[in-house]
Amino acid sequence: MGEFELIRNYFAAAPCAQPGMGVALGIGDDCALLSMNPGEQLAISTDTLVAGVHFPEVCDPFLLGQRALGVSASDLAAMGASPLAFTLALTLPEVCADWLQAFARGLNQMAQGCSMRLIGGDTTRGPLSLTVTVFGTVPTGQALTRSGARPGDLLCVGGALGDGAGALPLVLNQRSTEASTTQALLARYWSPQPQLALGQALRGKATSALDISDGLLADCGHIASASGVRLLVERDKVPMSDALLAFFNADEALNAALSGGDDYRLAFTLPASLLADLVAAGWPIFVIGRVVEGQGVGLIDDRGQDVTPLTRGYQHFRETR
Amino acid sequence: MGEFELIRNYFAAAPCAQPGMGVALGIGDDCALLSMNPGEQLAISTDTLVAGVHFPEVCDPFLLGQRALGVSASDLAAMGASPLAFTLALTLPEVCADWLQAFARGLNQMAQGCSMRLIGGDTTRGPLSLTVTVFGTVPTGQALTRSGARPGDLLCVGGALGDGAGALPLVLNQRSTEASTTQALLARYWSPQPQLALGQALRGKATSALDISDGLLADCGHIASASGVRLLVERDKVPMSDALLAFFNADEALNAALSGGDDYRLAFTLPASLLADLVAAGWPIFVIGRVVEGQGVGLIDDRGQDVTPLTRGYQHFRETR
Repeated sequence: MGEFELIRNYFAAAPCAQPGMGVALGIGDDCALLSMNPGEQLAISTDTLVAGVHFPEVCDPFLLGQRALGVSASDLAAMGASPLAFTLALTLPEVCADWLQAFARGLNQMAQGCSMRLIGGDTTRGPLSLTVTVFGTVPTGQALTRSGARPGDLLCVGGALGDGAGALPLVLNQRSTEASTTQALLARYWSPQPQLALGQALRGKATSALDISDGLLADCGHIASASGVRLLVERDKVPMSDALLAFFNADEALNAALSGGDDYRLAFTLPASLLADLVAAGWPIFVIGRVVEGQGVGLIDDRGQDVTPLTRGYQHFRETR
Repeated sequence: MGEFELIRNYFAAAPCAQPGMGVALGIGDDCALLSMNPGEQLAISTDTLVAGVHFPEVCDPFLLGQRALGVSASDLAAMGASPLAFTLALTLPEVCADWLQAFARGLNQMAQGCSMRLIGGDTTRGPLSLTVTVFGTVPTGQALTRSGARPGDLLCVGGALGDGAGALPLVLNQRSTEASTTQALLARYWSPQPQLALGQALRGKATSALDISDGLLADCGHIASASGVRLLVERDKVPMSDALLAFFNADEALNAALSGGDDYRLAFTLPASLLADLVAAGWPIFVIGRVVEGQGVGLIDDRGQDVTPLTRGYQHFRETR
């Protein structure tokens, strides 16, 4: 048995790889088998993270395990899907037991937090990279897509933006700051919490949705394009965290929130009539603009003046994809 | 729009990425959506191919596209699943239009041959590697696993073995031979034809199955282990192609057939009473041994003497996984 087969066995023994609902057959055969209930569709998304491109070559493997699954599960949240399972294709330059153990612990913690099971994958030798494919279920016809936004809808996000991009100078050891700010920002980068419950609550209500990975303005552009509408973002309503505002000056913080990416918060459009009930139910919903006729994305100030930046501006790992 | 987003759009326009049965939503949203019929399970498998490990750094991208999907689809054949769709996570050091066009043509040709649709993926910058995840459907409870072989069953394979490993010296330009032999062996390496129809024909009949990727003896060991039985392989019944026997001497050829791997033929166990009807129906089935009580795998000669090799012997790309 080769060392890479040992790794497969190692992952197969992880708590998140044990059998569970919907998983008829897990790791160890030629394929895994998923069972679905009648009236459900399966949502599928794949993300690759490459060392030196999407994360630093030298990083904490526990945090990498968390982040790898968290960013992929966020795509399920964006569709309103209930998380079910994932596969992991892991390419490693060498086998290091300590590294694998820490990575598996991080992966497992995120998997258990998201109620997802590891059902298979592949382990190969080569430059460090990971491809995670996630699976979730959604009632047939109720998935949240990018294409249903209608003029008159509110534009909303699920929480403060910019922390992921704000954390980058800390991730790269380019800047430092006080401990509490560092901790808050790094947690948002390394342990993104996919808004799975919010996504499910928006089924049948939001007219479009996605998770913010490329940056608010760029991702709003994806909704605008898919829905054939224009999105207006009110600059002064974009929520930002205390940590971001403590770390960055006001311009830097706004730039991170508008264009930074790596937020993994949901952005969605909602008929105005549905807002009050969702807010009353306690869902974290911040109205930051509205849908109008037209195309593209506009940024406006509190007097309604167009202040759309000419460039997206923020350089970070994802720019190189 | 970055160059890697252009690539995504490029793949989205491929014939194999167009909507089709079972694919409710394809490329372009946060997730793809698959619909299944009642009474079906979804079979899922993931394989990574790394340049310099699983294929030469310099190779024909058309052939690489064919091979990448073919080897993954073979896992669906091994489960008796009907192929449905796949995702592609492609990591490239740089964007080269000619390379991408040829790769996509190869991928597309295999996808159309297997009736599979490209439903999503990711495109990233980094050292060349590919992760393909394949999806197929199988009637609930009828998937062929590795764990049902019973003493008394016949051990069978779906065709000549050893060609994939026999082709390696040609793939690596280490040896040369006459054109027809070269062509036959390289075709088996670069364009493996997953035995999808055979796998489906074996549903409810074969007691265990897998596709031979690690080598006949090693893969028989997987069935023996999962089923809690012993498999006896009759050395003189292992089928080999004319091309392999023209290229290699008898010992080399047998070694490639027993231990070479990369065959992507099905190996399966079958109650003896079911053989005649399947052969009469025209399925390519070669009986090469039988299942007995015990554990592990034994190789026997035509007098029943144990001739099991002490080592697996054949070095090739997959050994490094």
